[in-house]
Amino acid sequence: MAIFINEILMFINSRILCSLRCTLTNYIGKVFSKELYDFCVMLFEKAGLTKEDAEIVSDHLVTANLRGVDSHGAFVRVPHYLAAIKQGIINPKPKIKLVKDSPSICLIDGDNGFGPMVAMKATKLAIDKAKSNGIGIIGLKNTSHVGMLARYTLKIVEERLIGFAATSSPPIVVPWGGAKPIFGTNPFTIGFPVDEKTSIIVDMATSTVAAGKIAVYASKGEKIPSDWALDKHGKPTTDPKAFFDGGMLLPFGGYKGYSLCLSVEIFAGILVGAPFSFHIPKGWATQGGFIVEAINIEHFRPYDEYKRDVLELIQIIKSAPLAEGFKEILLPGEPEQREHLKRLNEGIPVYEDVWENIRKVAEEYNVPLPKLYK
Amino acid sequence: MAIFINEILMFINSRILCSLRCTLTNYIGKVFSKELYDFCVMLFEKAGLTKEDAEIVSDHLVTANLRGVDSHGAFVRVPHYLAAIKQGIINPKPKIKLVKDSPSICLIDGDNGFGPMVAMKATKLAIDKAKSNGIGIIGLKNTSHVGMLARYTLKIVEERLIGFAATSSPPIVVPWGGAKPIFGTNPFTIGFPVDEKTSIIVDMATSTVAAGKIAVYASKGEKIPSDWALDKHGKPTTDPKAFFDGGMLLPFGGYKGYSLCLSVEIFAGILVGAPFSFHIPKGWATQGGFIVEAINIEHFRPYDEYKRDVLELIQIIKSAPLAEGFKEILLPGEPEQREHLKRLNEGIPVYEDVWENIRKVAEEYNVPLPKLYK
Repeated sequence: MAIFINEILMFINSRILCSLRCTLTNYIGKVFSKELYDFCVMLFEKAGLTKEDAEIVSDHLVTANLRGVDSHGAFVRVPHYLAAIKQGIINPKPKIKLVKDSPSICLIDGDNGFGPMVAMKATKLAIDKAKSNGIGIIGLKNTSHVGMLARYTLKIVEERLIGFAATSSPPIVVPWGGAKPIFGTNPFTIGFPVDEKTSIIVDMATSTVAAGKIAVYASKGEKIPSDWALDKHGKPTTDPKAFFDGGMLLPFGGYKGYSLCLSVEIFAGILVGAPFSFHIPKGWATQGGFIVEAINIEHFRPYDEYKRDVLELIQIIKSAPLAEGFKEILLPGEPEQREHLKRLNEGIPVYEDVWENIRKVAEEYNVPLPKLYK
Repeated sequence: MAIFINEILMFINSRILCSLRCTLTNYIGKVFSKELYDFCVMLFEKAGLTKEDAEIVSDHLVTANLRGVDSHGAFVRVPHYLAAIKQGIINPKPKIKLVKDSPSICLIDGDNGFGPMVAMKATKLAIDKAKSNGIGIIGLKNTSHVGMLARYTLKIVEERLIGFAATSSPPIVVPWGGAKPIFGTNPFTIGFPVDEKTSIIVDMATSTVAAGKIAVYASKGEKIPSDWALDKHGKPTTDPKAFFDGGMLLPFGGYKGYSLCLSVEIFAGILVGAPFSFHIPKGWATQGGFIVEAINIEHFRPYDEYKRDVLELIQIIKSAPLAEGFKEILLPGEPEQREHLKRLNEGIPVYEDVWENIRKVAEEYNVPLPKLYK
């Protein structure tokens, strides 16, 4: 049981909707990533994206599913993203502009293009600048939902660079001491390359949990810990219903998480000229600003020396005696990396409710559904 | 009482030794910052520092006292720092070397010089590079204790730049799931400039609390919360004595704090080629690596636009309804900023135990003590 709790903790963001789904709807089979990817590419091309852009967005969504981050994967997001194109929230053919550019910094206007595509372009530019000048830091405004942040640091560590990215998002989190949702869950990611098999990928919200996690408790009729949420009167609550009745999320780790949430708000939002989280409309496809940074290790020391030291540190961590209730010490991103390998081989699980939504868009866009394996 | 708890939380690092001192020893008067500064400069010059270096170190220590961060101030640190010079841990006349240099990045070898001095030189270099090229990121190895991290972001925000700094430190914190102290409290600071009167200064350890905080509980015979520490067997404990008997600190916010603690370990330690926290000798003057970053806001958008938005955000935060038990919503660094103004006018409180240590070094170095006001 103790290891289960640890696993759940490591997966708070990633497994949340999946857990909820396990509770609320039925497992009906699995699809394989390549077939899901092809399906998404066809859909997005029909929705007006270029082939290249459709491929980038599809790769992003399927990567999220493979890592177990189903809340940001194809099944959950595709119907909402397609609806957002129709509503004019996402521009399928954006004219991306470099607003300001210098050797290590650039500000991009994404023209409300697809988040996973414009944010990946920003990431590639950060990589190019880090390779040429040691560091690249790119701000992005006017973007739709950028998806799973780890996607960007995964790209950066592939190039043997250190990566960082953050984004501001619709309001649901209070400042420490306040009772009004002013901040988004304002997540960030940090990535350290190691070797072909290993990387360290931090990807966390600055709230204690996602709202979906509270939904899981609600569905089971269980109480939530007292440091997760406030009710609509600003009083800490253990009742999931009180959260959903106009309540708010607390930052993680008290005033420390608040400091980080506020820092993301300024760094990823205000610095790039995006609207405050407070003003971002709620929805599946909305986002504030985005910032991404890549750092060239070789500008400090030879990569092989860095790698040798990180591997030694990992060995020290992994061989430490265990605290009570734990069966293993995990690195940040390790559970998702394991899930990736598993789902690549065994397929991505599919649940009844999302499949029904996917079936509808497949019909509407006249694209054949990916095969469902039992 | 509720606001008192909030205040204590905001001051965990800063007030800790002061609180402990209030509990254990007697208040005997106060000194004024200018007189304390002059005293420190004279002492450090006699200990072999150049006048300029003595001034930088003294300014650092007195600034810590003014902000209420007495654990990193003159009374606590001066005797230990002087002892460290005698023991060869601090080199009073270091030959600082630029190991690697490029337009936005530099790696410095501090030759075991005084931390507050070599880290401030790194900070000034980061500022210069950010002014010229938009961003400056400086790594520092072979340094002694760098002191209060906020000192560096305070310097950076004075120049209307965004700042970040982090450092690795002697082992006392476990990885999430482990029962061996592998990391230091590995603190970091983030600074955002606003206007002449306001800045946002985050300065936090990545452990739940400092060990001194547990000492306060021990001195009062009170239990500690169960998420602060493990006993020597790796079992969460509420008994302060079990912590001091071979126990360890937990990272703040569970696995999220662990992710940050590990990130600081690699970014401020391994990247700059410093020893692991795990290998840093315990002591008042030891440190791992240090990294500092300055970012030029003007490379993204005009400073006045940024300032207007941050001021509006602060207004939104400050005018939010209050959560139960709070009387005010504070910005990160605001309590320290208020304490600074108060102590500048009213003096810095002095306690019997540290004054006795200061009296001894004043006698040894034949320097007149600063005047003690009742």
